Amino acid sequence: MAAFRRWKEQRLARADESRKGSVDEAIAGLVQLLNGQERFCTTSSCAGRLLLAQAPARGFNGYEVQKKNCSWLMVTHQLCAKEDVMTALQKATGDTVFKFEPFILHVQCQELQDAQLLHSVAIDSGFRNSGITVGRRGKIMMAVRSTHCLEVPLSHMGKLMVTEEYVDFLVQIANRKMEENMKRIDRFYNCLQLALKTELSMSNSPRETIQKTHSVYTHRRKRKPDKEPDACTSSENKEDSETEDDPEANLNIFS
Amino acid sequence: MAAFRRWKEQRLARADESRKGSVDEAIAGLVQLLNGQERFCTTSSCAGRLLLAQAPARGFNGYEVQKKNCSWLMVTHQLCAKEDVMTALQKATGDTVFKFEPFILHVQCQELQDAQLLHSVAIDSGFRNSGITVGRRGKIMMAVRSTHCLEVPLSHMGKLMVTEEYVDFLVQIANRKMEENMKRIDRFYNCLQLALKTELSMSNSPRETIQKTHSVYTHRRKRKPDKEPDACTSSENKEDSETEDDPEANLNIFS
Repeated sequence: MAAFRRWKEQRLARADESRKGSVDEAIAGLVQLLNGQERFCTTSSCAGRLLLAQAPARGFNGYEVQKKNCSWLMVTHQLCAKEDVMTALQKATGDTVFKFEPFILHVQCQELQDAQLLHSVAIDSGFRNSGITVGRRGKIMMAVRSTHCLEVPLSHMGKLMVTEEYVDFLVQIANRKMEENMKRIDRFYNCLQLALKTELSMSNSPRETIQKTHSVYTHRRKRKPDKEPDACTSSENKEDSETEDDPEANLNIFS
Repeated sequence: MAAFRRWKEQRLARADESRKGSVDEAIAGLVQLLNGQERFCTTSSCAGRLLLAQAPARGFNGYEVQKKNCSWLMVTHQLCAKEDVMTALQKATGDTVFKFEPFILHVQCQELQDAQLLHSVAIDSGFRNSGITVGRRGKIMMAVRSTHCLEVPLSHMGKLMVTEEYVDFLVQIANRKMEENMKRIDRFYNCLQLALKTELSMSNSPRETIQKTHSVYTHRRKRKPDKEPDACTSSENKEDSETEDDPEANLNIFS
């Protein structure tokens, strides 16, 4: 415990090493809520973004573009307008891809049961690709991830391959995904608050008993999408591990 | 242990409940290798696919399309040709999306250290979104997942929103991603074989000692993408949990 606390102090004192240099506004409250808990420490996060990325034109040889040779012609953590994308596309000289990337969060946890609590909250909030990593030295990390995304090649060697009408179509879809993303972040925040309050109110019990009777774990109602945007909704009543990315399930198109 | 074995026997005796009804050919060997090990049991898998999905036209209200109201106009687990996609698009009456979905695999594991072994192999093979789930009843699941994908809206209310030239452009990109996907599956198979053989050759040691000296965990070389397609390559020398989906890293465009 003491080791985790020391590590956390050092970690939170470090400068933000991301390209942006600060926590995204939409999730600042959530990050604060987590770091206010002794047992959690956030290590990286992104509220979600719409972006137009460019790589130097390389033909179709197939290469993995690392951040070091890829530039962003446009990026926003909110909704975007067609004009923003068209303006950015005019600057393209290589291959561009328009992307929607949803909320992502990494939280280091003191103990496995802490990661399980967060994992349950994440799944209940719609972040179905979330998962735990237990490192070889015992480090426990919870990654909050989502399945819904967009990845749309738009330019090749500087030439725009679609019409302005298509860009408008694409932007409307992307904005709907970003709105859904924001709703899920709100759900996550509310579910997390509820989970922490519930634990606190039962804090006279030994921790193991709290875990067994925790409402997030025991009360799993069938989820009603979008009818209770601010409430905690439970995942479908299936085996724990098959709520996420069943290859057959949830072909999200316009979510 | 006995409980896991009994559960596994029942699970493997069940009929395949996926839409396809059988394990994809490209990963049949891998699934067999895993299920041949007492401590692993695969629960769902997909070799990766290129598909054209259609949802009934709903405008831009934003809805999540579940598998029950979504149809596949085209699907392949191999490379595809522009003509295949154009033919499928001609049947479109609603909103269509072209998707590349990479390899995905869920494996239930007997103990946490078994999941950690698989997780390490998955990360080393390039499946950077892989993660462990520990259910509330102690069930341990390892999900092998990748970040690279494509999700490209093509039709709206039956109307094709792009040119045939764009479809050709898109198909070339998608095929490169599918090829990279297949290379990663081969790497995963080879890494897994190596990891299992290494453990077997050290099987005189207590299991805890094996874990500490396992080569997959201790020898982490800087990874050279695509130079050793058939060998195990180690993930970059970073903190364990930050090899996956750092929001700032790996903006894969044409991978």
